[in-house]
Amino acid sequence: MWIETKTEVEEASRSRAGFSRRVLDGLMLCTGDVEHLDTYIQEKWFVLQLAVWGLRGVARVILANNPLSGALILAALYWASPWQGLLGTLGVLASTLTAVIVGQDSGDVAGGLHGFNGMLVALLMGVFSSAGDWYWWLLLPVCLGSATCVFLFSGLTTLLDHWDLPAAVFPFNIIIVLYLLCTGTNNPYFPHSPVTPPGAVEPNDTALIAVEVIRGIPLGVGQIYATGALGPSLLILGAVVLYSPLLGVHAVLGSAVGTLAGLSMAVRHDSLYSGLSGFNGALGCMAVGGLFFTFSWRTHLFAIASAFLSAYSDIALSNLLGTVGLPACSWAATLIATLMLLLTGTLAAYRIPIGQVKAPERNLRSRSQWEAGNTEERESTDV
Amino acid sequence: MWIETKTEVEEASRSRAGFSRRVLDGLMLCTGDVEHLDTYIQEKWFVLQLAVWGLRGVARVILANNPLSGALILAALYWASPWQGLLGTLGVLASTLTAVIVGQDSGDVAGGLHGFNGMLVALLMGVFSSAGDWYWWLLLPVCLGSATCVFLFSGLTTLLDHWDLPAAVFPFNIIIVLYLLCTGTNNPYFPHSPVTPPGAVEPNDTALIAVEVIRGIPLGVGQIYATGALGPSLLILGAVVLYSPLLGVHAVLGSAVGTLAGLSMAVRHDSLYSGLSGFNGALGCMAVGGLFFTFSWRTHLFAIASAFLSAYSDIALSNLLGTVGLPACSWAATLIATLMLLLTGTLAAYRIPIGQVKAPERNLRSRSQWEAGNTEERESTDV
Amino acid sequence: MWIETKTEVEEASRSRAGFSRRVLDGLMLCTGDVEHLDTYIQEKWFVLQLAVWGLRGVARVILANNPLSGALILAALYWASPWQGLLGTLGVLASTLTAVIVGQDSGDVAGGLHGFNGMLVALLMGVFSSAGDWYWWLLLPVCLGSATCVFLFSGLTTLLDHWDLPAAVFPFNIIIVLYLLCTGTNNPYFPHSPVTPPGAVEPNDTALIAVEVIRGIPLGVGQIYATGALGPSLLILGAVVLYSPLLGVHAVLGSAVGTLAGLSMAVRHDSLYSGLSGFNGALGCMAVGGLFFTFSWRTHLFAIASAFLSAYSDIALSNLLGTVGLPACSWAATLIATLMLLLTGTLAAYRIPIGQVKAPERNLRSRSQWEAGNTEERESTDV
Repeated sequence: MWIETKTEVEEASRSRAGFSRRVLDGLMLCTGDVEHLDTYIQEKWFVLQLAVWGLRGVARVILANNPLSGALILAALYWASPWQGLLGTLGVLASTLTAVIVGQDSGDVAGGLHGFNGMLVALLMGVFSSAGDWYWWLLLPVCLGSATCVFLFSGLTTLLDHWDLPAAVFPFNIIIVLYLLCTGTNNPYFPHSPVTPPGAVEPNDTALIAVEVIRGIPLGVGQIYATGALGPSLLILGAVVLYSPLLGVHAVLGSAVGTLAGLSMAVRHDSLYSGLSGFNGALGCMAVGGLFFTFSWRTHLFAIASAFLSAYSDIALSNLLGTVGLPACSWAATLIATLMLLLTGTLAAYRIPIGQVKAPERNLRSRSQWEAGNTEERESTDV
Repeated sequence: MWIETKTEVEEASRSRAGFSRRVLDGLMLCTGDVEHLDTYIQEKWFVLQLAVWGLRGVARVILANNPLSGALILAALYWASPWQGLLGTLGVLASTLTAVIVGQDSGDVAGGLHGFNGMLVALLMGVFSSAGDWYWWLLLPVCLGSATCVFLFSGLTTLLDHWDLPAAVFPFNIIIVLYLLCTGTNNPYFPHSPVTPPGAVEPNDTALIAVEVIRGIPLGVGQIYATGALGPSLLILGAVVLYSPLLGVHAVLGSAVGTLAGLSMAVRHDSLYSGLSGFNGALGCMAVGGLFFTFSWRTHLFAIASAFLSAYSDIALSNLLGTVGLPACSWAATLIATLMLLLTGTLAAYRIPIGQVKAPERNLRSRSQWEAGNTEERESTDV
Repeated sequence: MWIETKTEVEEASRSRAGFSRRVLDGLMLCTGDVEHLDTYIQEKWFVLQLAVWGLRGVARVILANNPLSGALILAALYWASPWQGLLGTLGVLASTLTAVIVGQDSGDVAGGLHGFNGMLVALLMGVFSSAGDWYWWLLLPVCLGSATCVFLFSGLTTLLDHWDLPAAVFPFNIIIVLYLLCTGTNNPYFPHSPVTPPGAVEPNDTALIAVEVIRGIPLGVGQIYATGALGPSLLILGAVVLYSPLLGVHAVLGSAVGTLAGLSMAVRHDSLYSGLSGFNGALGCMAVGGLFFTFSWRTHLFAIASAFLSAYSDIALSNLLGTVGLPACSWAATLIATLMLLLTGTLAAYRIPIGQVKAPERNLRSRSQWEAGNTEERESTDV
């Protein structure tokens, strides 16, 4: 049972359900899209509002829309590396503030839609930088790159709106590739390490360690935030489960599918162990399995197909971009998710319009209510 | 004289025209789009239906829509190489079946629209594989790649529908490039040979042999199905002529134009001899000269321009993709044909809406009937 | 005060304002879009019309729409290099004539919209050719390449029309890249020199010469026409100022911003000295600051942002395309200007529909008139 609207909450607390019920209610308040929080903060200070928008932006990276998940994920990032945590915070704030200044739609800003691309740009700039942690000059491109995401997000939204497609993480993928191209490996101010494509042969080919491969599956979820440590990855997974258990299941499933795809193409062991093989699969699986489509066993099968396609496309694009020393980031998952949204036939029947996308569990309930409503209406029309 | 609808056929046979007339009628029944066959197989077994859909798919590769042409082409492929024939058959069946399972529009499936991309993917996977014939593991990527074409075809159709553009062979071109990138040249399971760009200098540059160059022109038609033997190429050309003589003329003309373009750019001799210089020109010429546009002397000139543009673009794209060891496939012809469909001005006046595209001879008749109809209607309105 | 329409001009000349007023009027007649000329040449010889259309096309390269500016620019090109001047003339005539033959919209042709891409293709083919000046065989690809621009311009216009976006210099950028790919560096007929990416390290790294860097700023304006001499560059800048002083200011500002961006990324000194770092910034700045958006201090800030984005994207794309020996041309500025046109929020409020774009000063006046008209209309509706 999922309770999200204020009135339902009040009704529920009026009931004599005892202590355990109230604890459960409290927990329920923190899951899903937490829309009641928006009403709560509406008349509060700008700084508090900005914090909530930012935390939503942090969670949006992994397709969740919940400030508490965002806070957990941010904690995980600071745990993994304080410098990366700082960059991420700066990125999400820089792009959200730019969106406010540039006059973007306030609903989009409040939903964190202008934060997640900026955060990813900031995190990846930190990861690829070969100048080491606490290299303060890096804050300059981080701020500029994050701010530029707002321009790309706004422009791409106008472009893709014709097909009711989201701009998703296209802005991040474009900006990070342009940044890495712009600076090059031997830049005197902003040096970065070149990327090894997953298809490269290893000098001394040893046998695969099964435990390490399995360990790579949860790491794949963490790699969405460019973190390769197990603890923070599990905390990020927990944050997804807090938003929606269904999304969490698909994240792990997608990462496993991605690892399987990597094994079938004999990618470098390193790529499997670090979770880099899994994260595109995870994103592709999550987007189809519950978020943009109502969950059902058919959608579930399409989600697995989407995970495979994302994972294989990621290997292909990594090999292509690797020839010029660039990473494939999440191009594969973003393109495949966009393709899935364009599909006609069986899958299209389950599609949720972009403006009405909520937590998977909520989507499921909305749909049954909507269908029930449709039936009622039809009946009343018949009479 | 072209007879295709059932009633006309019955009327014709009722007439006292004697034996020779009946033979001609029988031949006429086999040319063009053979729509009467669809009515005939409607209530038959699924396997028979699937065979007809598949054969239409085989013919669609070369822009024909005739199951008999498809059967002739399949025979040509088995003649050239039984292994390639098997791969092609598997590819067309895998993608057509996937389309049925995934719930694609039944009219599209019956028209073979979901078969031709899958077939091309299968054929090209076989051609580029360096594991030799009868390497059974290859059937795995062949089936998966062909099935994926359905997803891309459906998604791209939604995307391009805004401009009434066909998805054409974009899915094939995308999938084959991704597959080759994914596996790489030194893949332990699915190795493939890298591609030599046409602009590469030859070690010992000998004089061109005119006969070989001329022999490359019909081979260019065969190269659409990735076959480089003269006999099967001529059989494929025959299959096109069976569908529409006009299309056959444009195929040879386009291939000749492509060879000319190759000569003017001094491409490798090998590229001219094998027909690889010609096949993009042939496709570009066929698309404009009669298929998507009503045939006239103006359309014919545009078809020649389209052939030149396709051929030069192919050399350019082959040189670009060759730097990372990839083939340009039919990217050039597909892009140029799409460009031609978008053109305004003189050519746009001859454009046939995608949904009404038939055999060129039929298009020509429909248009004159339609124009006659328009005139009549206008007259009747005046009265 | 700006006078452009015939009636206003007549009224003005009827007034007793004396000699100095008349001189000013005469000068005013030559600035802005000079629409009265179109009425004047309407019934004249085709050759005169073609000349005016061509000169408009020449000026359109730098976003001006004034045949006198075009004449000045053409003079600058002949001054810099007679061979380049000849190629430019041939390019603009070939594409304008092709547009007439192919039946493009006569308004577009008369506005020079089919000339500027052809001219750029011709100029750049000349610049990259390593066969030296007066290599007459080059006229063949120059004519063909320029003619092809018409096809791409027409097709892209249909495609981009859905978002009210201009085809801009996309055709030129596509054709020149395809041409360079097609011929390759070691082509026996049309050889060209490979391009050095701006991020390449220099063998002996000397200190920057400030005067040379500052000299690169006006050269950046000349580089839009691929000329690297100071005199012709200043003449081209003068031609822009003749069309619209505001556009001229933004050209210099954008070039300066581009140079600054180049400095911040430590590009090769050569790239800064020659103005190659500046010209994308100049184009990006001009497009936003006054041309496609009504001028205001907000638009001005967006124009500077656009200049920075164009300049950084240009460095990124030059490094990317440089890996295969290709130039980035004006891809960066064209893409960023397109992005700016798609933007929602504050900037969108200032956007001028593509069909109503005039000289910035005229845009400014139209808008205030239009807003005044709107207020009046609203008042009259209220009554």
